[in-house]
Amino acid sequence: MTIKLIGLKRSTATLSVIVCLNELGLPYQLEVPANFSVDIKSEDFLANKHPFGKVPVLIDGDFTINESRAICRYLTSKYQGKHTNKILIPNDVHQAGLVEQAISYESFYYDPPVSKIVYQEVIYKFHGKESNPEIVKQACEDLSKVLDVYEKLLEGKEYLSGEYSLADLFHYPFTYYAYTYAKRSDLWDTRPNVKKWWERLCNRDAWKKSLVDIKS
Amino acid sequence: MTIKLIGLKRSTATLSVIVCLNELGLPYQLEVPANFSVDIKSEDFLANKHPFGKVPVLIDGDFTINESRAICRYLTSKYQGKHTNKILIPNDVHQAGLVEQAISYESFYYDPPVSKIVYQEVIYKFHGKESNPEIVKQACEDLSKVLDVYEKLLEGKEYLSGEYSLADLFHYPFTYYAYTYAKRSDLWDTRPNVKKWWERLCNRDAWKKSLVDIKS
Ligand SMILES: N[C@@H](CCC(=O)N[C@@H](CS)C(=O)NCC(=O)O)C(=O)O
Ligand SMILES: N[C@@H](CCC(=O)N[C@@H](CS)C(=O)NCC(=O)O)C(=O)O
Repeated sequence: MTIKLIGLKRSTATLSVIVCLNELGLPYQLEVPANFSVDIKSEDFLANKHPFGKVPVLIDGDFTINESRAICRYLTSKYQGKHTNKILIPNDVHQAGLVEQAISYESFYYDPPVSKIVYQEVIYKFHGKESNPEIVKQACEDLSKVLDVYEKLLEGKEYLSGEYSLADLFHYPFTYYAYTYAKRSDLWDTRPNVKKWWERLCNRDAWKKSLVDIKS
Repeated sequence: MTIKLIGLKRSTATLSVIVCLNELGLPYQLEVPANFSVDIKSEDFLANKHPFGKVPVLIDGDFTINESRAICRYLTSKYQGKHTNKILIPNDVHQAGLVEQAISYESFYYDPPVSKIVYQEVIYKFHGKESNPEIVKQACEDLSKVLDVYEKLLEGKEYLSGEYSLADLFHYPFTYYAYTYAKRSDLWDTRPNVKKWWERLCNRDAWKKSLVDIKS
């Protein structure tokens, strides 16, 4: 049975899952709620899809799971190595530990400022809401400091924990929107290792396919 | 060789790792940096312990890993079932997926407001810094909404994803500090399922031992 992904083409969290599905070579069917903001807060959606009323939600046979990072971990545990030879979480316990470490950097240091920039400068604009320049300024400063650390972490490495992994994958959506639509590319481009890392990520086939998927 | 944990007894993130070590029945040695705020920003610490200059850091033989949630995942993968029969991440891929889902709720919905409350009302006070009542008010409102969802999630369940897991464990430190020291216990106590869940967590042997560990 084809995997069903409930989400939106312009949703950052949905995009992570799409990239993961493509890395693992899994066909999927995107289901877009007809009346998004109403549907995802309906009693049925809250009870059976996502208790906080969010997308993405993945349905794999009779199993339903939500939260982008949890969905990607589930897909990886279940399908990694089955359709492609991509390894998103290594089998070795120490290598996996280092991937977990980088996943935590993404969740707790990188995501907070970059998501603020994207919310303020892309998502709010899309909804016709004013952005707050003070918040953007602070977020850019915070993200700069994080990227200074990434610049060192990436020295002599292709990806955050050596080989490509879920840790790198989780960086795609907000980086893509901040880089492309918030026009903040200088934050990445002025740091040589970070710049090369982002170029490497942009060159991956699964990413290119994902962009086609969300733009088609 | 005994596992070494670099951290502080009053550090929330260190406390998660202590609980995990105790659940898994792993002896450890806590190493407190002599001059904390200076030591953790030293060149050596940033290069070899934690690139963002934080604790906890765990050293297991010749393997070093940082970030509390990553450390707990590493310890679980490596040691679960070896010294105690506690299962913190289930082997079944679907059960594990549901644990991941609840871990994501903790990281992205529960942690932001509860950590704000604890920073504002406990940690800032400890450092003699003023707290901001507006931020506290907003955080309490946000946390209330999250706890309303938890109240439903916990209906008919002992723990967030059925059996006790890392997802519950990650809630300990900030809940403990908000409940006990920020005197916000009403947020939990006014919701019967949430109240019973927190009592159940407080009754676990590993938690009781952890409190002794950080108070001794
Ligand atoms: N932590 C969640 C975040 C999900 C999220 O914020 N989804 C957005 C779309 S990108 C959404 O559903 N927003 C609707 C709402 O919050 O009402 C994840 O990683 O899946
Ligand atoms: N995401 C980190 C947070 C670590 C953290 O914030 N640690 C605090 C102590 S609880 C710290 O080292 N603070 C010192 C600083 O930030 O300068 C984790 O979960 O380990």
